[in-house]
Amino acid sequence: MTLKIETLAIGDELLDGRLADTNSQMLARDLVDLGITLSRQTVVGDAVEEIAEAVRRAAERADIVVTSGGLGPTTDDLTAEGVAQAAGVSIRLDEPSWERIQSLFAARGLELPENNRRQAEVPESARILENQKGVAPGFVTEVGSAEVWSFPGVPREFQHLQTAHLIPHLKGRLSATSLFTETLRCLGATESKVGSVIEPIEGRYPNLRFQYRAHFPEILLRLVGSERAEVERAADEAEEAIGRSVYGRGEASLAERVLHALEAAGQTLATAESCTGGLIAKTLTDVPGASRVYRGSVVAYEDDVKVALLDVEEATLKAHGAVSQAVATQMAEGARTRLRADWAVSTTGIAGPGGGTLEKPVGTVCIALAGPRGTKARTLHLPIPERERIRSMSAAVALRELLSAFR
Amino acid sequence: MTLKIETLAIGDELLDGRLADTNSQMLARDLVDLGITLSRQTVVGDAVEEIAEAVRRAAERADIVVTSGGLGPTTDDLTAEGVAQAAGVSIRLDEPSWERIQSLFAARGLELPENNRRQAEVPESARILENQKGVAPGFVTEVGSAEVWSFPGVPREFQHLQTAHLIPHLKGRLSATSLFTETLRCLGATESKVGSVIEPIEGRYPNLRFQYRAHFPEILLRLVGSERAEVERAADEAEEAIGRSVYGRGEASLAERVLHALEAAGQTLATAESCTGGLIAKTLTDVPGASRVYRGSVVAYEDDVKVALLDVEEATLKAHGAVSQAVATQMAEGARTRLRADWAVSTTGIAGPGGGTLEKPVGTVCIALAGPRGTKARTLHLPIPERERIRSMSAAVALRELLSAFR
Repeated sequence: MTLKIETLAIGDELLDGRLADTNSQMLARDLVDLGITLSRQTVVGDAVEEIAEAVRRAAERADIVVTSGGLGPTTDDLTAEGVAQAAGVSIRLDEPSWERIQSLFAARGLELPENNRRQAEVPESARILENQKGVAPGFVTEVGSAEVWSFPGVPREFQHLQTAHLIPHLKGRLSATSLFTETLRCLGATESKVGSVIEPIEGRYPNLRFQYRAHFPEILLRLVGSERAEVERAADEAEEAIGRSVYGRGEASLAERVLHALEAAGQTLATAESCTGGLIAKTLTDVPGASRVYRGSVVAYEDDVKVALLDVEEATLKAHGAVSQAVATQMAEGARTRLRADWAVSTTGIAGPGGGTLEKPVGTVCIALAGPRGTKARTLHLPIPERERIRSMSAAVALRELLSAFR
Repeated sequence: MTLKIETLAIGDELLDGRLADTNSQMLARDLVDLGITLSRQTVVGDAVEEIAEAVRRAAERADIVVTSGGLGPTTDDLTAEGVAQAAGVSIRLDEPSWERIQSLFAARGLELPENNRRQAEVPESARILENQKGVAPGFVTEVGSAEVWSFPGVPREFQHLQTAHLIPHLKGRLSATSLFTETLRCLGATESKVGSVIEPIEGRYPNLRFQYRAHFPEILLRLVGSERAEVERAADEAEEAIGRSVYGRGEASLAERVLHALEAAGQTLATAESCTGGLIAKTLTDVPGASRVYRGSVVAYEDDVKVALLDVEEATLKAHGAVSQAVATQMAEGARTRLRADWAVSTTGIAGPGGGTLEKPVGTVCIALAGPRGTKARTLHLPIPERERIRSMSAAVALRELLSAFR
């Protein structure tokens, strides 16, 4: 059995370019784990007739319609009215919700504007969904043979209601009590390349779903199925087929893996960045607790900074140029010594758009890894014309090099 | 006169969570400059009947429907068929488009798969739109009294066709030949605060459109009108009303302004980052040509790195703690000296989630600016519980401090 599910996002701010409907994608990703693909998404503005018409149409096509937005306290917030009109019922004040709103405001010592009463108003026939992340409750209303689930538009609140109420309900309806997923994390392969090597494996496992998610420079391949052993077997085959581009399995990011591997080994890390200009440092320190492992970075955008703070030799710069394995090596070793770390990675390259030459075109990046057992350097020739992508690929490859040292 | 415009994005990858429809927002932003708000957005999967039904419905409601996606060479690409079915016409091969595809492949020395012929197939009655950024042409088809414009889904190609064909056409239909816009860039005010001080001004200029776009931590307020003098007058009043939170006008980002101001003055910049962990360096080096001004950074995540590379005194660390104006001051001065720059900014703070105390809770951030005329430091108390937001707000405030020094 499968279910037809549509989303309906409501709000003028989604139609005039201020915001994009990100809730539908968030829901779609969770649904895919249940073997469900959204059948349609619609976005309409803050107008009762529009909302009611869109709800009615969606309820004709789908088993479940999930609306987002339009549950705030202002007169522009018309979702309850629209859904009620589609259901052919009136609006009621839900007393428990109204009491909860009053006590929320009281607890924060805030005066309660009369407007907020609207947030406790729901279609007569609606069932209330508790919202622990915000003021307005969600609710479920029957429209024809469909269930219309109405959630606030704030992504944090939408996600909470989705996770706390909708997904468990769907699991119940699908009796899909035990779905297993495995994620292969790939760096250095394109989606089409991964797709083509996976195709024969996909053919051999008709009960599994294979999903791709591209977050440049990474590709995540997710396998979903109802039997853990089958999912794992297929994941093993997929990893074998994709080869060295798989850097790990599961949810942890590349930066998290690097930090965990170092922490487990009781070792520390420093970085020396030229073309990535702080991106590696930023990526590592995005992770809470990075300070247990990460000591810091010298972002040496200018050559004399490489000399002054990383002990790169002027003669090396002169002989090989700043974008060279020799300079990358000295940068990594300098960072390791100066920042007193067990490991250091460095980058120096040409991210463009300017600065390329015939010998060292834009996309030439040298990376070095210095560690307790010495230093090794390599040169990347990235056939990517965009500064941002050259930088993010370089940062990812540098972290990947480091992770490989712990295998 | 105004026009009703809807978008219809087509593709299974938009329904299973792999991608979000970003083209609709891109179009919405350009339309708003013409005084048009999208009236609806729809997303459907790769199925002819679904596409045809959605096109028909949209064409009943709107004057113009813009479809994106489904113009590729595979059998999943069904937009031409769907639109043709909605229009009640058959499909034809457009010979000039087919010749162009053949010569594109020949010029690259590539073999032309027979499949790509599909990309020259359009509804019988369609008018072709040249696509200089890709293989598949766009096309316009009449469905009832509406025009259906079909563009490829690749954002770069969608944007090209939007800019090259659709927007000029709309300007012609609206005879809106001359719209002027001005953007006020705000940091340190919430959208609701900006909204409330702007409301009376909005009331005085009924011919202008006021649009907000929030990119945390910034708010951009855009004024659009047909008379330059009126737009500028309103922008002056708005800037006056919002006050110090406005850091500039126009399209250039905060980092770009900092780099331009320094370059114009022939001066250089270094940074010393603790809690922002490389984010300021990354933000500055995102801008091509940053190296003309930016010398580098010391990301001193650990205290002893602050001592070793930034000459922070151990006694200062002991007396005031790492998160203090005294340490921020020494960090900025150390970066200025060690990296031989005219200016340096520093950050040291508690981004969380751990590390907060009663005296210095999460969100406490000290920022210092060292320059030719001395150093000044300040402390922020950010009431934001998210690590990422604390970091991005801190980085923006540091850059803003520097920009203010050039006023």
